[in-house]
Amino acid sequence: MSFSTSAFARCLARQARRYSTKPLETRTDERRVIFSGIQPTGILHLGNYLGAISNWVKLQNEARPDDDILFTIVGWHALTLPQNPKELSVSRRDMLATLLAFGIDPKRSVLFYQEDNPCHVELSWIFNCITPLGQLRRMTTWKSRLATVRNANDESEVDESLLNAGLFTYPILQAADILAYQATHVPVGEDQTQHLQLTRDIADAFNRTFDPQKKFFTLPEVLITPNRRVRSLKDPSTKMSKSNPDPSTRIMLTDTFAQIDKKIRSAVTDSIHGITYDPVNRPGTSNLLSILAACENADVEEVAKRYVDKGHGVLKKDVSEALEGLLKGPRSEFERLRQDRGYLDAVAKEGAEKARARSQKTMEQVRTMIGLY
Amino acid sequence: MSFSTSAFARCLARQARRYSTKPLETRTDERRVIFSGIQPTGILHLGNYLGAISNWVKLQNEARPDDDILFTIVGWHALTLPQNPKELSVSRRDMLATLLAFGIDPKRSVLFYQEDNPCHVELSWIFNCITPLGQLRRMTTWKSRLATVRNANDESEVDESLLNAGLFTYPILQAADILAYQATHVPVGEDQTQHLQLTRDIADAFNRTFDPQKKFFTLPEVLITPNRRVRSLKDPSTKMSKSNPDPSTRIMLTDTFAQIDKKIRSAVTDSIHGITYDPVNRPGTSNLLSILAACENADVEEVAKRYVDKGHGVLKKDVSEALEGLLKGPRSEFERLRQDRGYLDAVAKEGAEKARARSQKTMEQVRTMIGLY
Repeated sequence: MSFSTSAFARCLARQARRYSTKPLETRTDERRVIFSGIQPTGILHLGNYLGAISNWVKLQNEARPDDDILFTIVGWHALTLPQNPKELSVSRRDMLATLLAFGIDPKRSVLFYQEDNPCHVELSWIFNCITPLGQLRRMTTWKSRLATVRNANDESEVDESLLNAGLFTYPILQAADILAYQATHVPVGEDQTQHLQLTRDIADAFNRTFDPQKKFFTLPEVLITPNRRVRSLKDPSTKMSKSNPDPSTRIMLTDTFAQIDKKIRSAVTDSIHGITYDPVNRPGTSNLLSILAACENADVEEVAKRYVDKGHGVLKKDVSEALEGLLKGPRSEFERLRQDRGYLDAVAKEGAEKARARSQKTMEQVRTMIGLY
Repeated sequence: MSFSTSAFARCLARQARRYSTKPLETRTDERRVIFSGIQPTGILHLGNYLGAISNWVKLQNEARPDDDILFTIVGWHALTLPQNPKELSVSRRDMLATLLAFGIDPKRSVLFYQEDNPCHVELSWIFNCITPLGQLRRMTTWKSRLATVRNANDESEVDESLLNAGLFTYPILQAADILAYQATHVPVGEDQTQHLQLTRDIADAFNRTFDPQKKFFTLPEVLITPNRRVRSLKDPSTKMSKSNPDPSTRIMLTDTFAQIDKKIRSAVTDSIHGITYDPVNRPGTSNLLSILAACENADVEEVAKRYVDKGHGVLKKDVSEALEGLLKGPRSEFERLRQDRGYLDAVAKEGAEKARARSQKTMEQVRTMIGLY
């Protein structure tokens, strides 16, 4: 699934209108519960950072004091695809270290491993029992997964029968992740807006079945966060991606300055004189400007003006230095943290305790409502 | 799905041969873990007792001292069908009281509510991720559920899309119920033998994926228990059933002697002189003989010999008295226990603690094997 930036923005705005029973602004008096999750994929690249973690940090730092914020590393979701267990174990701890290194504050946000809170799977089972198979089959991630399998093999022979049940039902687990905390706001990735609609449908189905008067579950809203899309340094027509076999296409969050500098120097641009922001005709140059603007947290058009009579060499030098400025502190903090397993485990333990305490409140009421008490 | 008694016996024997890697007799040196579950359906009838609980009590009382025995009341499975929450809450406690009243000893057997042990849903999620959808679709209980829905509506319009995901995936939860305790022996109902094969397939898939050397999960075996089939007192061509609208077709475990006597007196028999055991030609008479033999724990042909020159009146009187002999003690114990919620809750709490401790051992190793540690 792939959206252009503007098409995606329109889609998000549409979703937001559809999801909101009232405009976001009128809700300022209500206490928000902000919830999001990320897969334990190990070391991240710049695109991951700008697409998710930087938004989480911003949300955390700009939240109101009474907002409840929860961020989880979703190991159970990772199991839907084949994993190397040893690597997965390292990846989940690396993800925790990354989130801490980039500024998620475990005193402010509840930061935990999903698999440390069994309420998620318990609530997921309950939701399984009120979610029709047809609703799952309509998920576009499921459809695209099916399509992938069909392409990879002979289409006539391969069907969904070969895919595992976890791939099929994980949007229900995702609904449980969110609703276990009665989340009100969910910053979601672009391919997850449909899943948030499913979460709202499930919450609504639960309310109608078990609690028509009080409407126990809050229907969470999409939280629209800026989505700075970073392109491959070698082929700016594609996204910066972990799966590209050429590591010089992406900046890893652990890259040294020398590595960053080398990758940016060799980034594809164009031979047009002067620098302008023009993603259609000058995708490589515009990608570098986007990266620079993201590092400076500035508007890309404003940044471009500074380079209108300069060359690519100057721009690349500035991009490398801006990236180093962004990554240097978190990089060394990450390297320090990943050596300190005791601290990471303590953070995870405390986060899990807080998460369990919050979801336990929900689950006690759920168990009563469904009759298992 | 419906088997005649002998066809079912043959089927079980076939299954047992297929399931056993070695004959049961050669395993006497190994410690057994016996596991079974029952739905919280409230007050039971005689057929339920003879089909499940009486076998559990026998298993418990004849087990070797080092056998581990676990019996669970599966509230999570009950959610796959619509439930009245207030009734479900009463039913699960009534089921606990029933099991205790009929002789399940919580000091000998681990007796607990499934929903008190989140390891079941956690392991179920993990198994979801290694179980292909096609395997679930082949379950005959799923097929028959689909067929029921299709008959109930217009076949051309209704498809599996309307059924909930819990109905589809519950055989995976059942596998988790069993494997969380590394059960070696599972007494199963006749419609569950295919599910036990799925449990073995899942255990095997897990072993192949995560632990090819050691084969972590034991592949559990079907435990063949006598299956005394009790027929409707009014129409012996059908099973004694809870869903029959006419209560005089069944003996409830809470029936008073007056109720039992009235129902047995009005039971359908035949006008043939003398009593013989002939299920094909004399199903009503044979059903009464079967009930009497079950109460006496005797062979039905032997019992029949005593009545060869007697009439139905004598037989019915003896059946009523035998039933009263069987049910009187448990009935008053049940009525006493269901008033003592404090005791029931204490038994459930202790059972849950023991169950969690056992499954926690399994889960710690599972989490390490899959990489979530």
